This record gives sequence, C-alpha cells and structure tokens, in this order.
Amino acid sequence: MKIHVLLYADGGSASLEAEAGITIRELFAQSQVGFDAPCGGNGRCGKCRLYAAGALSEPEERERSFLTEGELRSGMRLACYARLLGDCELRLPEENASIETSGRSEAYDFEPTVTVGEATLTIPTLKNPLDDRGNLLSAAKAADASYAALKKLPALTRAGKWSLFYVKDGETVLDVCPEKPKAAGMAVDIGTTTVVAYFYDLETGRLLGIESGLNEQKGFGADVISRIAACIDMPEGLRALQEAIIGQLNGFVQSFCRKSGFKRGNLYQATIAGNTTMQHIAAGLSPANIASAPFIPCSLFGFTLGAEQIGLELAQAAQVYFSPCLSSYVGGDITAGMLACGLDRMKDTCLYIDIGTNGEMALRHGGEIVCCSTAAGPAFEGAHIKYGTGGVWGAISGVRADTMRADAMRNGAVQIDFETIGGVPPIGLCGSGLIDALAVMKRLGVIDETGRITDPDELEDASLAPRLTEIDGEPAFVIDPESGICITQKDVREVQLAKAAIAAGITCLIKEAGIRVSDVQSLLLAGGFGSHINGASACEIGLLPPELEPKIRAVGNAAGMGASQTLLASGSYQRLTELVACCSYVELSGYPYFQEQYIEQMMF
Amino acid sequence: MKIHVLLYADGGSASLEAEAGITIRELFAQSQVGFDAPCGGNGRCGKCRLYAAGALSEPEERERSFLTEGELRSGMRLACYARLLGDCELRLPEENASIETSGRSEAYDFEPTVTVGEATLTIPTLKNPLDDRGNLLSAAKAADASYAALKKLPALTRAGKWSLFYVKDGETVLDVCPEKPKAAGMAVDIGTTTVVAYFYDLETGRLLGIESGLNEQKGFGADVISRIAACIDMPEGLRALQEAIIGQLNGFVQSFCRKSGFKRGNLYQATIAGNTTMQHIAAGLSPANIASAPFIPCSLFGFTLGAEQIGLELAQAAQVYFSPCLSSYVGGDITAGMLACGLDRMKDTCLYIDIGTNGEMALRHGGEIVCCSTAAGPAFEGAHIKYGTGGVWGAISGVRADTMRADAMRNGAVQIDFETIGGVPPIGLCGSGLIDALAVMKRLGVIDETGRITDPDELEDASLAPRLTEIDGEPAFVIDPESGICITQKDVREVQLAKAAIAAGITCLIKEAGIRVSDVQSLLLAGGFGSHINGASACEIGLLPPELEPKIRAVGNAAGMGASQTLLASGSYQRLTELVACCSYVELSGYPYFQEQYIEQMMF
Repeated sequence: MKIHVLLYADGGSASLEAEAGITIRELFAQSQVGFDAPCGGNGRCGKCRLYAAGALSEPEERERSFLTEGELRSGMRLACYARLLGDCELRLPEENASIETSGRSEAYDFEPTVTVGEATLTIPTLKNPLDDRGNLLSAAKAADASYAALKKLPALTRAGKWSLFYVKDGETVLDVCPEKPKAAGMAVDIGTTTVVAYFYDLETGRLLGIESGLNEQKGFGADVISRIAACIDMPEGLRALQEAIIGQLNGFVQSFCRKSGFKRGNLYQATIAGNTTMQHIAAGLSPANIASAPFIPCSLFGFTLGAEQIGLELAQAAQVYFSPCLSSYVGGDITAGMLACGLDRMKDTCLYIDIGTNGEMALRHGGEIVCCSTAAGPAFEGAHIKYGTGGVWGAISGVRADTMRADAMRNGAVQIDFETIGGVPPIGLCGSGLIDALAVMKRLGVIDETGRITDPDELEDASLAPRLTEIDGEPAFVIDPESGICITQKDVREVQLAKAAIAAGITCLIKEAGIRVSDVQSLLLAGGFGSHINGASACEIGLLPPELEPKIRAVGNAAGMGASQTLLASGSYQRLTELVACCSYVELSGYPYFQEQYIEQMMF
Repeated sequence: MKIHVLLYADGGSASLEAEAGITIRELFAQSQVGFDAPCGGNGRCGKCRLYAAGALSEPEERERSFLTEGELRSGMRLACYARLLGDCELRLPEENASIETSGRSEAYDFEPTVTVGEATLTIPTLKNPLDDRGNLLSAAKAADASYAALKKLPALTRAGKWSLFYVKDGETVLDVCPEKPKAAGMAVDIGTTTVVAYFYDLETGRLLGIESGLNEQKGFGADVISRIAACIDMPEGLRALQEAIIGQLNGFVQSFCRKSGFKRGNLYQATIAGNTTMQHIAAGLSPANIASAPFIPCSLFGFTLGAEQIGLELAQAAQVYFSPCLSSYVGGDITAGMLACGLDRMKDTCLYIDIGTNGEMALRHGGEIVCCSTAAGPAFEGAHIKYGTGGVWGAISGVRADTMRADAMRNGAVQIDFETIGGVPPIGLCGSGLIDALAVMKRLGVIDETGRITDPDELEDASLAPRLTEIDGEPAFVIDPESGICITQKDVREVQLAKAAIAAGITCLIKEAGIRVSDVQSLLLAGGFGSHINGASACEIGLLPPELEPKIRAVGNAAGMGASQTLLASGSYQRLTELVACCSYVELSGYPYFQEQYIEQMMF
C-alpha cells in the first residue's frame, strides 16, 4: 500500500511517497532526506527525534525508554522505531527547537479542561422521580449541561440503561454519548501569513495531526494594515475576511477528520492564539481602530466564544478560547508564546522576541514584563526583497563564506556557499538566508557601515569583483552566479530599516526595565523566522545585541505551543490572566528615545 | 378617530369600538358593559379599578391619589379618569382578583435584572490605549458583554463621541445603543389550553400590553398526554410542536410591537411559566418520558436559555428564564404562582390549588410545602361535557335556583336562573357554570348522593319534572329550556371523577402535612377556572372541603403574575430556588391512601 507523508523541515515542506510498513528512517534513506543519528541508525542513541502525527505504529517499550511522557504526548518519536502505517505528517525539529519543546512539555501537567467520563445514573422511580438533567449532573459531578446535551439526554438514558458517557468542559457537560466518545481539541496559531492548527487527543494529550497553510486572507493584503483596510473599505469586508479564516479552519477540521477518523462532533474545544488583528477578524469583531492612532482594539480577549457564534464547525457546544492580547500590536500570539516559554514563572531576566512583519518583544525582569511592538516591515518574510521568498523548498536559508577574510585573501579567492531548504536548486532567499547574506557581505567588506554596496574597485578582495553587478541601475551582489540570485542595494536598505526597528525596540525595553543589555540572561527567538535565524549573523548585522549571542535560544512556534498548552493544561486560562496582569505595554510611537535609537541602529 | 378596544371580562373577551378621547367609563356606558362605581361615576371613590394597556392618557394627580405605586405599575387605572387615546386593552378585575393583585404588587419591589444606563467612556489615548470592551465594562460596571454588543461597540463608541447607552442583564451588557433604548420584557404563561404574554416596560415596570390566545398546539391534541404522544409518534413531532408555540409567541411579539411602537430588539428578557410539558416543548426538550410511569421529565428547569437557542425572536442576546418545576406534573406555572402568592414567605397554613385538566396543589405548613398533582380530566374546561365550552362570550358561567328548596316547594315552582359571559344568549356551559349546575341539581334533589339523575316520579319538587329529559337514551336535566342546554348523566359522571380526584388530592396533602382540614387558614384558587368558580357550589358538590369555604380566595392567573414578578424583581430567581428547596412532591399514583380517598370522594 502506497502512503503519503508530508514532511516539514527547515521551515518548508515536502510530499513523500512510501510503502506502508517501513520505518521513518527507511523512508528518509529512500527519499534522500538528510537526518543524522549518532548511532548510525541502530536504535541505540535515542537522538533521531522528530514529531509525527497520523497513522504510525504505537511506541514500543524500547522507544519509550528514550522519551519522557511529555515528549510522547507532544508527538515525539524516534525515526529508527516508528513505522508508517498510513498517511501521516512528520516535522523535523532543529536541535534548539527540539530541546525547547521537550523542556516545555515537561513543564506542565496534562490536565485539560475537557474530560470524558462514564456516568451511571440513578434509575428513577415513582418514589424518586429524578429528572434526567439533575440525574446527569449529580452522576457527572457537573454544575450545568449544554443545550445540545439536554436535547440528546432523554433518549440516551433509556437506550443505555441509565449508563452513558459524557464530555465535560470544566463544570459543564458539553455532550452525552452512548459509546465512549473520542475527544479532541484544536489549538490554532493564526499568523498574518500562515495558519497552523494542532489537533490533540484530549484523553491522552497526544498530538493527532497538524494542518497548516498560508492564511486564506492573503488575497485581502499581505499585512495586518491592508487586512484592516479591507474590513473598513469593502462592504461586508469584515464578514468576508472572517469567512476566509474560519472557512480555512473548517477545512483544516475536515482534513484532520478525513485522516484521523475523528468527526467534527468529537472536537470539543479550540484555543486560538494570533495577533490582535487576526483574533478580531476570526472572532468577527471590527479591527477598524487598530490601524490608526491611538490604535484601539475592540477587545483584548482572554475569554471564550461559542464555536457556533463564530461559525467554527466543531462539536455543537464547543467553546473557543482566544488568548489575551496586551494591545493592538502585542497580541494573543505573544501572550501564548510567553506562557509556553514560562515567562510568567521565570526568575531569570529574559528577552522574548517574535520577529515577523512586526517585531513584538517582551522583557521579563524582576517579576514584571515590559512589552512593545515595532514595525519591522515584511523584509524578513521575503517581501519587498528582489529575490525574497518564504521558507519554502528551494529557499536559500543559509549563506557562508568558506574562510575568514584573512584566509580568503591568502588563498586568492573567497568561496561563498549556501544551502537551500530541501537541498534542491535555489529559487530565492528566505529571511535567514537574507540575514546570513548581509552578514557575509559585511564581513567581506561588500557593504560599508552605512549599508552602501562598494564599487568593485574599492573591494579589499578583488576575487569578489565578478559578484558585483547592477540590477535596474542599482548595485547588487550576486550570491549564486548560476541562478543569478543576488542582493540589491534596495534589499540592503529594507533590511537596514527592519533591523533598526527591532534593535531600537530592544534598546527601549532594556531602558524601560532599568537594566543593561548584559543583565539579560536569555534571549528567546519565537516564530518560524526566529527559529531559522543564524544568531551570529543576526548579531553581526546588529539586528540583535552582539553580547547576547551566546544567550540566544530559538523556541519555534511558541504561539502554537502556547495555544496547545492552553488546550491541554486547565490552569492556563488563569496563568494567562496573571501573566497579562504583570505586563506593561510601551507604545513606541509616542516614545522619543525610540526615534533616536531607530536612527542610531540603522548603521551596520 | 375610531379606536379598537379589546375587553377581557369574566374569563371571556370582546372587541369594542369607540371615538378616541373618551374615558373608559364613557366607553362602558356606550357599549352597555356593566361596571359598578359606588360613587356613580364622579371620580370620588376610586373603586372603578381595572387593568389597562395601550394608548391611554397618563394618570393625573387625582387618579394617582387613589392608586399605590405598585398598582400603577401593574397597569391599574380608574375608569372615570383614564382616557382612550388609541387602540388598547382593558381587563376587568373581579373583586377578589383585584384585591389579590394590588396586594401582590405591593409585596415586591420593582427591581428588574435588566437595566438601562448611560455610560461615558474614557477617551483612549496612546498612553492609555483602553480597549473598547474593557472601557465599556468599567464605565457600565459590568463583568461581561454579549457578543452582539461587542459587534456593535467599535462603531458606536466613535459615532457617539465615547458616550452611549447600554442595556445590562445582571452583570452582562446585552446591548449598546446610540440613543436611550426602550427596554421591555415579556412574561409568558403557557397553559395547555391558553397562552398569555404580558409585556412590561423594564424601566418603569408598567404593563404595556397583553397578548393571548388558545395554545397553537391545540391541533396536536387537547391535553398534555396527547401533545406528548404527538412528540413521540410524529417524525419531527417535537420540532413541530415547538414551532407551534414559539411561532405563536413570536406572533405575540409582532402584535405587541405593532401596537406599542417597540421593536423586537427592545425585548431584552423573557420569563416563561408553564406546566412541565409545556416548558419542555417550548424549550425544545423531549417530554417523552413524562407520559408514562415513573413520569420522568428531561429537566426541572429553573435556568435560562438564549432566546436564539429556542427560536424566540427578541433582542439578540436576550435570555429566557424557565420557572423551576417540581415534577412532571407540578410545573413552573405552580412554582411561579406560589411565588406570586408569596407562599415562600407565608406564616399561615395555606392551600394553593390550580384546577385545570390536572389539579395541581400545594400545602404550605410550618416552613415546608408538600405538593401533588391529580388527573382531574378536562371536564372543568368544557371537554367531554355535552354542552361544555371554554370561558367564552355566551358561556353559562353561573347557575342558581332562585330560592332555597323549602321556599321553592312553598311557592310551587323553582325558578332556575343563569348568567352568561358578556350577558349574551347562552351557547354552552363553562366550568364554573357546570359546578353551579351540579350544586343546584344536588340541592334540588335532581341527583342523589351517588350522582344518579332521579326519575321524574322520584322528584320531591314536581315542578322540575319538565326539565328532566333523555338525550341519546340517557337521563338529562335541562338548564335552559329555550336553548336546550342541559346536563346529561354522563356529564355528572365526568364531574364526579374530576372532583373526586381533586378532593382526594387535598385529603392526601392534609394527611402528609400531619394536620387537619380545619388547620388550613387560607385556600387560594389559581387559574382562570379557579377565579370564576363559585366557592359555595364547589364546596356543595364536595370538590373543595366545605369547612374551607370562608377561606377561599381566587388569585387569578397566578402563573402569569409569577412570571411577571420573575421579570420585574431581580430576587425572584433566588426566591424560586429557595421555594423549590422547601417543597416535597407526593406522587399519588403510588400512594394507597389516595386510591381509597378517590373512591370515597366520588359521592356527592
């Protein structure tokens, strides 16, 4: 039997085909996917870790011995052991991300608010004529029952001889069933660019599947400002944008159900983490006043709405929790990410940064958290860059010069190497490749401190001269002579603006907290881009403070992990509420020091 | 300008026409409606009280001086003073009912859970970027806002320069409006036979209108058992019956809105009191197991559902409260009625009876309430009685023999008089007329102790002989020789069964409470039938214990008044919960003493 495997790696994805029954390692060998196992694939080291969801063999004792309960729950498997039984999805962790994930999944107990139980009701008699609802509430130790459950109850109690299964959300019975129901939940990270939904078994905590795609609102504009404009300018604009994202999530649900055998009626809860605008649109609330000063959201969320109210097709009585936002530009994705990273319980001084179109950041110091958001622009996401691209198969994700400059000069020529996602021929540069390229250009003297690409005759290393060219009348530096992929002067300027905004934001938070850069004990980089960035390069170009380079840790899709934690750990609503209470927001657009720093940080 | 006036009196109703501008007294004089005012219509006695809703003059100081605040709120007016300005509805109180109503309306403070307020929001700035929702909640001192309110909020705050009106239900903002909204509520009494909706202004507590009609479910059967059968037997039966009653209530809302100028969006709350089956069907919950032993309801209610959930077309976020039931056959109409009569706060030993198809009764004694329900059958509602009819225009509602039996014999002939609702020619007998007729027949020796109609030659008073006849081969006694309206032997048997059930139920409650009949200090008769019954006749035929005759008090539509109180007094939910907690239910079908008493009480 041929099966289909969707592989996520290095920020991109690929479809692979295989015969059912082989191990993941065998699949990778057949498909020439590079994946190291220190023991050579003998199943002895437990290092060939990855995340897997779908039709896989159950982990056996040997495999279990290498993994913690938390890791097993998060879907982590060993490639040597796990066998592919049907369609599934695999996600390669990078070294850092994998450490972070396992650390995080051990940090909270699996204790979802949604629980499944069996109730044996009292058989009512003339002398004890208990009503069905009261009978259920007392057997299920619940305080209330949903309307959907009440409608099913009378027939069910009698058919099941007064024994039935129930699904509770906290104190409320959501559903009653004759057979033990599967219960799953959906944790959603709605990014402006991409949307990811994680589906979990709410009885075991296991990851059942991941669905993702580009945000279907993309036709309405690439960034939040153009999406808000579409809500304002188009008749029924908000409704159209809401239908786009909710329709996409409903599609994810359908796709997950098709693959997993779950039904939408088995999905009893959803949690959503997104930036403030994305949460407004998903909830059907107007984001109109987010776009212009004084940047006022309709709501900061931190509450649930009925899935039915927003058109999400889950179980009838399912509730959808929206992560709390801090302001119009520090949203539920950031609070969820902070939760996932445990910023609320951290004693260290810690800087958390999510770099995308906006750079949102939070600095935890001495029990308080200060936050801000800077408009970095979409350069790091590949927009407005000549050869820019997202993190897709074929994107150049890393660039390096083979030697230090001194060596290169000794040997006569500098070799510039690059790698692409999936190892296929290059089609463009994604954010991490762009930063690497700029760092290389700076080290090689191709750009000066002001960001100007030097004339060929100014080059210290003449062997680079053939790489200097002109595109549309402006200087450019060729990264790959074969494909012609290059960095233009304008690209350099875009990166300068973006990195200055983020660097200035960091400086402002440091100042607000009354500390020095060197006091920061860890720097967490969240989001797809933050996970792939080369820390040394980011420090080289001044995007991040150089003295924090050894303290950088990528935390992957922290927003998605936070949404997952909110689904899987019942104390999360409370923790998020407390986290928000210790946050203060600094609005940089009214902050003179930011302007000053912005200009200063423009230099390389 | 011609206006239309709907007049409810003596359990029936009539349409009258008049010129706008005249007083109610002038209308009654023109239309020959009998209505006493001891002062002869000079506006000096304040006795010409009635309930009025619709387009009427505002009460002036003189009129106000005769009425309490509670009475004014309940819609009470004086016929001498109130002028008809447009279409309206009038309801003549009977002497007893009017006393009870005014007593009751003084017994609770007008303090609805739904309130209207004006909020001045803080103008948000860059330094204080309050989200709209948080801004509203803090200005309106609320804990939550409905989804409907959130959707309107962003546009409204800016259009209204940060000042707006809100409608709260308890701690939740239901709605926000640019102008001060009208706020009304609907209190509904859903009877198996009739449905009445009272519309109140939630700002002043004033009765704005009453809509009523025969229950639209009548096509599915006359009693709760046949309605339940329809729910079980027909495909989508429950849905059809729910649509019938909810459609009827939506029609009431439309009719009320048309007359009053309110919109459905101004109706922010509803309360429903009905028997257990009627509440199930209105809520869309299966009543299937109410019909057969052990008589188990799906729910005993005492909670709210969203108006939208049950299809009721009120304001978007409006909640509908269902009165708590005690059992399958002691429903929310009884608890609401007990609330209206203050049974929960009463120190006296008090018997509360609602006679309809079922006789539901409750006995308050020493802080406890014992309740039961007996299947009286529909005789008192006119069904299964040869010339039976409901309380409509032309129904014989009272029958009396002009003299005591001894006098009659002295004078040679007994004159039998009757009165009809509206004073028009008779069309049949309603419940109160039926009981009077039986009492007269018993007094005149037309029926013996066993209920047998005597042979003409056995009559003590020969002048009655012409009234004895045969219908379809069974003996009958003619009440009105002109129309031929009579009581058949079978009618007598129907009444015997009905009265025996109720009398036996009373005996059981008395026994349960461990008291004697003479300990009962008041006997409250609720419901349309209970209000029109002649207490002496009811005692004469043994429907009610003769020694309680002087303690009988009719309390009118107590269920409707209880639903109204639930709408108008915010403490009512709590009071109903406490009331239910001190009630115990006696299931008579498993109670041998009841069988014994049932047979014993069959005799006249």
